Amino acid sequence: MDVKAYLEEKRSIINEYLSSYFSIPFLPETLHESIKYSLLSDGKRIRPILVMASYEACGGHAEDILPQAAALELIHTYSLIHDDLPSMDNDDLRRGRPTNHKVFGEAIAILAGDALLTEAFMMLTVCAETTPFLSPKTEAAGISRKKFRQSSLLKTVREVAAAAGLHGMVAGQAQDILAENAEPDREILDFIHRHKTAALITASVRLGPILANAGKRKLQAITQYGENIGLVFQIVDDILNIVGTTRETGKPVGSDSQKHKLTYPAVYGLESARKQTDVCVTRAIDALKVFSSEADPLREIAHYLVKRRT
Amino acid sequence: MDVKAYLEEKRSIINEYLSSYFSIPFLPETLHESIKYSLLSDGKRIRPILVMASYEACGGHAEDILPQAAALELIHTYSLIHDDLPSMDNDDLRRGRPTNHKVFGEAIAILAGDALLTEAFMMLTVCAETTPFLSPKTEAAGISRKKFRQSSLLKTVREVAAAAGLHGMVAGQAQDILAENAEPDREILDFIHRHKTAALITASVRLGPILANAGKRKLQAITQYGENIGLVFQIVDDILNIVGTTRETGKPVGSDSQKHKLTYPAVYGLESARKQTDVCVTRAIDALKVFSSEADPLREIAHYLVKRRT
Repeated sequence: MDVKAYLEEKRSIINEYLSSYFSIPFLPETLHESIKYSLLSDGKRIRPILVMASYEACGGHAEDILPQAAALELIHTYSLIHDDLPSMDNDDLRRGRPTNHKVFGEAIAILAGDALLTEAFMMLTVCAETTPFLSPKTEAAGISRKKFRQSSLLKTVREVAAAAGLHGMVAGQAQDILAENAEPDREILDFIHRHKTAALITASVRLGPILANAGKRKLQAITQYGENIGLVFQIVDDILNIVGTTRETGKPVGSDSQKHKLTYPAVYGLESARKQTDVCVTRAIDALKVFSSEADPLREIAHYLVKRRT
Repeated sequence: MDVKAYLEEKRSIINEYLSSYFSIPFLPETLHESIKYSLLSDGKRIRPILVMASYEACGGHAEDILPQAAALELIHTYSLIHDDLPSMDNDDLRRGRPTNHKVFGEAIAILAGDALLTEAFMMLTVCAETTPFLSPKTEAAGISRKKFRQSSLLKTVREVAAAAGLHGMVAGQAQDILAENAEPDREILDFIHRHKTAALITASVRLGPILANAGKRKLQAITQYGENIGLVFQIVDDILNIVGTTRETGKPVGSDSQKHKLTYPAVYGLESARKQTDVCVTRAIDALKVFSSEADPLREIAHYLVKRRT
């Protein structure tokens, strides 16, 4: 399969949904502009795509869960806006453009993040009242509308809250900030990676089987896949911060090292980091053996992620 | 009825639930300490109490919806931590103690707020999987466990997200910040009050009938009650900022005026502000006429709120 075409197709569906959702003006205008500035920028939309691909792997039709998929991008965008703040990572550049607080000021940037995080939970529950029907493909896979509505959406709220909050992403970012200038420590590095990035990536892929009411075996397999590609994602980001270009990453090269961040290459060295991503990709793909070709997009995405690494 | 005893009893139930929920240590410790510092401080717990009182007014037993009630305090606390930040209201004192960022630094304060907001949505859905039964009193009121679980919790997620987010509290705070030093403007003041404070107060009281599956008439009555006491709440806060003492408010007196905040007394004058709270309390109590004595706590709370005004 052509993974680039797959990613591009899904990305444009997500972009269209997000643009349309945030097209209606609201007050204050500055808050609306600030949200659109960061959310509708040139992101890879990898988390929503993972939700869609894992839902498809469980037999569903991805467009039936578009709101749930898109909600993950709101969470991701809020985390970028807050992480970039002067009191956090103090970054001036994101996705090749000035960061949100550079354009709108710190107060509006904090509030835009707060609004995106809150709206994500609204978006996660959109189908509860508004989806009139599921597509024939999804219904044919045995995913009934009743089951879809009743418990799955509550489970997605809990899944995302757990992954994004004080036992997940926020804990990872807090530890990342607190570990700046600290001595290299493998245990703390592992904590940061698992919480800051892998938790939300894992939740993204778990939403597929949860929304599709898939069995335990498939959920476990996809969870393992998610944990491994979550680590790949973070390690590759760490590598690109050293060997990539600003054009590739949209961020200044070497910023992690300047801030004395605890990164995988800083603790284990660049070569070991590269090897680790290969190990994780192999593990991720091994985990998917309970699936046949319907999980090919997930497999190809794992390969694609490691190819970003130079 | 003795409203002070009622408020104190409910407050201690909420405090016990919150302490217990956040008693299990998690990493990083600083994040945990920061959350506990602000959440387990000496708050009035008025939003959770309103959830409980409105649920009781619809026949339910308040302890059955303790997580949903407590979740509102998480949202309120997150908003206080973020509002106090240097780039927002830049307050050093809250509830008589140094503000969160003064003790833990800005980065951890922002993250503690993010974590509380996220965890609120987890807490709102707690009953979905964990409440083993409802109390006989709630069941006797015709609120079945099945109904309680299936749709009400999803509705509470949507209700709270709508009230707290970009069409609610966050929009109000953004407008409040943007209107500093602006000319007095009644329309903008009205927008700030309705969004910054009244939206979440209204959502708090609406959770009662929503969780109890009460009819439209009761929901509408309670909504009107909420909108009116929400305004009372904000106007009384504005008045106390002028005529109160730091001991009463836990904040420096006159800080609104120093920051050239757009407040009700600043736009309409102190006497008109006092009159407006009386008008709103009368309207709030009028709205409750579809209820008999089971809504007495709500009525007494309305009187109590205006009595805080000096």
